[in-house]
Amino acid sequence: MIQRKIILILADGLGDRPSRTLGGQTPLQAASTPNLDALSRSSSLGLLYPVAPGVTPGSDTAHLSIFGYDPYTYYKGRGPFEALGAGIDLLPGDVAFRGNFATVDERMVVVDRRAGRSLKEARELVEYLNDNLRVDGVRVLLKHGSEHRFALVLRGKGLSPDVTDTDPHAVGLSVNLSQPKSHSEEAARTAAVVNEVTKQSYALLERHPVNAERHGRGEPKANIILLRGAGSLAEIPSFSSKYGLKGFGVSGTAMIRGFCRLIGMEAPIVEGATGDSNTDVAAKAREAIKALETHDFVYVHFKATDAAGHDRNHELKVRMIEKLDAMVGMIVNNVSGEEVICVSGDHSTPADLGEHSADPVPLLIHAPDCFAEGLRFNEQTCVHGVMGRLRGQELMPVLLNQANRIKKFGE
Amino acid sequence: MIQRKIILILADGLGDRPSRTLGGQTPLQAASTPNLDALSRSSSLGLLYPVAPGVTPGSDTAHLSIFGYDPYTYYKGRGPFEALGAGIDLLPGDVAFRGNFATVDERMVVVDRRAGRSLKEARELVEYLNDNLRVDGVRVLLKHGSEHRFALVLRGKGLSPDVTDTDPHAVGLSVNLSQPKSHSEEAARTAAVVNEVTKQSYALLERHPVNAERHGRGEPKANIILLRGAGSLAEIPSFSSKYGLKGFGVSGTAMIRGFCRLIGMEAPIVEGATGDSNTDVAAKAREAIKALETHDFVYVHFKATDAAGHDRNHELKVRMIEKLDAMVGMIVNNVSGEEVICVSGDHSTPADLGEHSADPVPLLIHAPDCFAEGLRFNEQTCVHGVMGRLRGQELMPVLLNQANRIKKFGE
Repeated sequence: MIQRKIILILADGLGDRPSRTLGGQTPLQAASTPNLDALSRSSSLGLLYPVAPGVTPGSDTAHLSIFGYDPYTYYKGRGPFEALGAGIDLLPGDVAFRGNFATVDERMVVVDRRAGRSLKEARELVEYLNDNLRVDGVRVLLKHGSEHRFALVLRGKGLSPDVTDTDPHAVGLSVNLSQPKSHSEEAARTAAVVNEVTKQSYALLERHPVNAERHGRGEPKANIILLRGAGSLAEIPSFSSKYGLKGFGVSGTAMIRGFCRLIGMEAPIVEGATGDSNTDVAAKAREAIKALETHDFVYVHFKATDAAGHDRNHELKVRMIEKLDAMVGMIVNNVSGEEVICVSGDHSTPADLGEHSADPVPLLIHAPDCFAEGLRFNEQTCVHGVMGRLRGQELMPVLLNQANRIKKFGE
Repeated sequence: MIQRKIILILADGLGDRPSRTLGGQTPLQAASTPNLDALSRSSSLGLLYPVAPGVTPGSDTAHLSIFGYDPYTYYKGRGPFEALGAGIDLLPGDVAFRGNFATVDERMVVVDRRAGRSLKEARELVEYLNDNLRVDGVRVLLKHGSEHRFALVLRGKGLSPDVTDTDPHAVGLSVNLSQPKSHSEEAARTAAVVNEVTKQSYALLERHPVNAERHGRGEPKANIILLRGAGSLAEIPSFSSKYGLKGFGVSGTAMIRGFCRLIGMEAPIVEGATGDSNTDVAAKAREAIKALETHDFVYVHFKATDAAGHDRNHELKVRMIEKLDAMVGMIVNNVSGEEVICVSGDHSTPADLGEHSADPVPLLIHAPDCFAEGLRFNEQTCVHGVMGRLRGQELMPVLLNQANRIKKFGE
């Protein structure tokens, strides 16, 4: 019995709906995908409900589910995922937030939720706040993510993630006061800390030289921080203890690398893997192939399909699928052929919609002894596939079975 | 509304994968199965996950699930199944083990885990131990199974199934001391009893005349017993109380007969039904047809497909499927035609793998008023079948529906 290695490739937001813009096709149907076509012909197809039929997951809950962790148990807000992705080593009890720099007027009304979006001084401002925000008995840690985004962690005794966002989630509204979501003392205290930190951020940023310069150039000031998605880390069993596999993750997206590390997988920063449309797929493929020499399970995440869907850019989504296809080719043509290779998405992001949806995602599983269906790989061919319809949490057991890594239940 | 009788035929380990050895076919595809073909053309097909997608069951957990008993609730180790199969009437509180005769050297290192495998004196030795093993306050019951195998039951107050095996599961290793798996007094006491019984077995067997004779003939001595799979019986509702059906089981395999009796079905030994490749399928078919006169539900188990898969013998598996086909023909051609007939497997045992797998099993359900698909019966035709994909615990309700034995939920 050969125990196969497993390569799991998930294209973020891959699934789609037929669109008039593409003559009634989905981006996957419209794209030219010679490598996926070749792989698909000798693969078993199916559909994947990342969580369950009718559930529209975020990338975070989808990843939990697909890696076998019930998101209803393990998902405790996006903040911890963001913090892990930014490279903060979270401790139990820490409360983590997603943060943005934003622009407010003197009445604390939000004028620009992203302070102009591509804020090249963000890292400098994050470091400044990291050094100067001071709250009694609580450490305030910030770490820059990308553009105007960062993670913020409150560390100390007696904190709770049960607090509301300060981000009003729309321009023209005032910055919210964080409120406790429960009656606990910890939640009340944490909300007070969040409001104090927000107030200090305005005081510190409004008079920061970067903002004087931005103002001089006619750019919106990054003069406040908005926080959302408070959460604490759930105790989570490691991927290796769950499956007996040594795992490795390749992703240009901080949050996904953070997720991989959360479950104990190695997931270094890969030079050139940016998570956007310019990402270097050759670098990602090389990293995956190299990792396969020393690991049983290699996960490759491809982000740009999701971003194109969010941007309602059908043409770009088609091109990003073609880029994914190139990466799949580089991987498939440089491994032994004895591996189990799975290609799917973490969820659908239909380009007509510009948002995640609950549509199931096409699923391809290849192994030397799988049932070959002789079909292309898309939302419609997958409907009739040998693999049927799997839920996220069923995928890993099915891949382990195909890899002959079988734990028998009973005798 | 005619309430139909039900015939369920499960071929053990039936499911398989396409194999190079068979020109890319599965054994079921490669076999000549005129009777199954004829039945299949007028049947509804589907796939059965014996427990759930990605779960590789043993025959024991698979049978529990397929007969409608959640194996995660009712499965408490293999020992009780083995004991029931050997004909020991278990009581609540009994701790049952699977046992082997084995050969150890004077350092208690296992030289042969099966004492030469076909141990014709096994029954005599079992009876000798049954009469001579003595532990204070505990009855030690042994009953011979087949070849070198037996069941051993400890009966008394304050025992626990939470103890480890003495069987080291490999040659060249010492016989293990049984250890308690929990901190309970009962587990500690049971482990001590197991170790005492093991020690006595060596003293009794080493000087038994059978072993002097075996030694004289150059055969390995059966000079110790190895125990594994400690378990106690779960309280389980009867098949008749669950479904309102009077059930009958036909199997040449002790464990399966034990399972049938555990759920209150009649399951006598059938002359000629051996559970191996020489089994007398005509005798089994006759027994099934006769039982159908007085029972609502007849279960027929066919073991040899599984054994061929374990032996990685594709050719033999094909021939055993052809033997199964003959049995199916004898049954189908000698009943009224008004029955619900279901043919499937308890799990897959791909011959390339030589082990159970989680691959779903082809499923055929025939009734006079079912949707006829006009197809042969194999892993690939079943992918698109009318019955879809069922989990083990869904099969009985589906068969009851097809048999017009319907309990309405609501009004």
